[in-house]
Amino acid sequence: MKRGFTDAEFAARTKRAQALMAKHDIAALLLTTEPDVRYFTGFLTQFWLSPTRPWFVIVPASGKPIAVIPAIGQALMNTTWIDDIRTWASPDLIDDGITLLADTLSETAGQGRIATPDGHETHIRMPYADITHLSTRHTLTSDMGIMRALRMVKSDAEIDKIRHACSIAGTAFNAVTSFAHIGMTQSQINRKFQSACLDAGADNVPYVAMGLGQCGYFDVISPAGDITAQSGDILMLDTGLMWDGYYCDFDRNFAFGPPDPRVTSAHDRLIDAAAAGVNAAVAGATAADLFRAMAKITGAGKAMEAGRFGHGLGTQLTEWPSFIPTDHTELKVGMVLTLEPSIETIDGRILVHEENIVIRENGAEKLSPFATELAVIT
Amino acid sequence: MKRGFTDAEFAARTKRAQALMAKHDIAALLLTTEPDVRYFTGFLTQFWLSPTRPWFVIVPASGKPIAVIPAIGQALMNTTWIDDIRTWASPDLIDDGITLLADTLSETAGQGRIATPDGHETHIRMPYADITHLSTRHTLTSDMGIMRALRMVKSDAEIDKIRHACSIAGTAFNAVTSFAHIGMTQSQINRKFQSACLDAGADNVPYVAMGLGQCGYFDVISPAGDITAQSGDILMLDTGLMWDGYYCDFDRNFAFGPPDPRVTSAHDRLIDAAAAGVNAAVAGATAADLFRAMAKITGAGKAMEAGRFGHGLGTQLTEWPSFIPTDHTELKVGMVLTLEPSIETIDGRILVHEENIVIRENGAEKLSPFATELAVIT
Repeated sequence: MKRGFTDAEFAARTKRAQALMAKHDIAALLLTTEPDVRYFTGFLTQFWLSPTRPWFVIVPASGKPIAVIPAIGQALMNTTWIDDIRTWASPDLIDDGITLLADTLSETAGQGRIATPDGHETHIRMPYADITHLSTRHTLTSDMGIMRALRMVKSDAEIDKIRHACSIAGTAFNAVTSFAHIGMTQSQINRKFQSACLDAGADNVPYVAMGLGQCGYFDVISPAGDITAQSGDILMLDTGLMWDGYYCDFDRNFAFGPPDPRVTSAHDRLIDAAAAGVNAAVAGATAADLFRAMAKITGAGKAMEAGRFGHGLGTQLTEWPSFIPTDHTELKVGMVLTLEPSIETIDGRILVHEENIVIRENGAEKLSPFATELAVIT
Repeated sequence: MKRGFTDAEFAARTKRAQALMAKHDIAALLLTTEPDVRYFTGFLTQFWLSPTRPWFVIVPASGKPIAVIPAIGQALMNTTWIDDIRTWASPDLIDDGITLLADTLSETAGQGRIATPDGHETHIRMPYADITHLSTRHTLTSDMGIMRALRMVKSDAEIDKIRHACSIAGTAFNAVTSFAHIGMTQSQINRKFQSACLDAGADNVPYVAMGLGQCGYFDVISPAGDITAQSGDILMLDTGLMWDGYYCDFDRNFAFGPPDPRVTSAHDRLIDAAAAGVNAAVAGATAADLFRAMAKITGAGKAMEAGRFGHGLGTQLTEWPSFIPTDHTELKVGMVLTLEPSIETIDGRILVHEENIVIRENGAEKLSPFATELAVIT
């Protein structure tokens, strides 16, 4: 697998953005977050973990995007297809790039509308006081969902990276039965699993969610602690690993010792629900349709507590849309999605199962190696 | 090492916040980001990687903080010291918690001032359209640097966690000379190092920066690629690992084969600069003083390009203050800091060296195992 993208890919993304901008009379798109900046530039770094510095990319009505960034990023931005890179010595405690940004926006947009993503699953990554300051020179309007529309549909090159991430995770999941055993702590299992992901080729492992408990678990977002695995426990591991800036996001459940028949039955229904999701995942259907196809098999009670039955996937662990009854987003060719049905086993305990797919012309292509049965750790 | 904090710790943090709020006539503090929410609740999860859902915590003028969060977080929030937990079924594409938040703010603050962090290194983690929507019911004002002031000074319990993270990284760095060799790619070295961090006890490894090049490197934020290590290369590894929600952030340089004398000399100066930083790191000095103490030894030319000579450290990889000439933040007992001098070797190539300390009554305590010389990989 080759890292990076061709310049043609970034040019095509920019052109698509500019077509949508023209439709909405937007003269410049202002982007501040890691996935949005990377989408148009290819600027890939873990440095975003540092909250110190703001980073800006402006997509003009025509021509290449313009980077307005801290000087520390110049060397890396120089390696991308971007030509117009404007830097300042950040951190600047008085004016952390705001005047440079405002000037560049004036030059780029003139009196035209400047838009920024403002909807669901977005935020503006800069200090609120700086937004207020910027507002004295420029009015920010909504991007009308342009970034959402663009990023939801993946190119083949993006899909290849996600498929590769899925394949790495598949190898790591296959290793679990060989290292996990009764008596290990959650933390030990979690760390071994992360190492297995790295050994299998992950660049990094930003996310590993776990569940552990008799016949199921109560939640899937708690950190790994010092609780030890017991006979009869169900272990869920969900990753969250990255390759070249793209995530996979699927899970596997494991039984420590012979599983309770109610667990096996629940797991079978999750497998069936994921299969129903695959069948329903066709262009033209909606996110809500996909939810209903899976909920028909699992029931929807617990699903509504956990939140949803899956979501988009790409440069972020979760992206739009959401598989809930009220999301009527139309599925399109190129959307990469997770199918994530959940079900109650006993006494409020749940199992969650998750796989990854992409919508193709003729239906869904499986990106993760779909599970067929509950793995048992003896 | 014990995970978590006592309820008394959270009560003390809340009390300190409320004293500062009273001073600034703030009736409620609205918090939206992972470190701020965790600071008052102990809510620790990797789930923040998902941008889908907003999370809110309100610190009232008196009494415990109130959590206004997606239902998926209820089970985990129930395990914290927080009593008042209000949830909604998120994602809600029409009203993703905003009415619940606005109602809770009305109940908590009445007609009083509602403040949110708005300064350097902060952002509001919710959709901009939702901020606008919230603004029709409540005016958000500046927190006047309250969160910055609180979070910059660490408790002993926090310092213990950071020291433990440093110790884990120290073990991992010691392993590098045994696994790294000429001919390995950056990516291979990076992944092996992450595994070494996990083996040594890291919960996860969110950040590993690398430099690799003859006699030094050009930048320290680029991702690990497929370039192979050559004889004469200098390798820099910088982590970025976490234990129980706290980071260490220090690095080590390694020479592949006998180093060029100019590299050895530059590295010696970095060791000296870090030692000068330790000596200058006393309560009452300023961040700028610490910068100058180190720059006196290294020169400041390259430092200004890289950005700074260190920063605060805690629940985030980088925190306030910044060691730059213009940051006049007074150093206080309990501040955890990185000393990060950098220096040019030849032709624009740099070395960066980083260690971690905490300010004590009688000067600095070293948290990372300070390096004394450049390690050589033979």
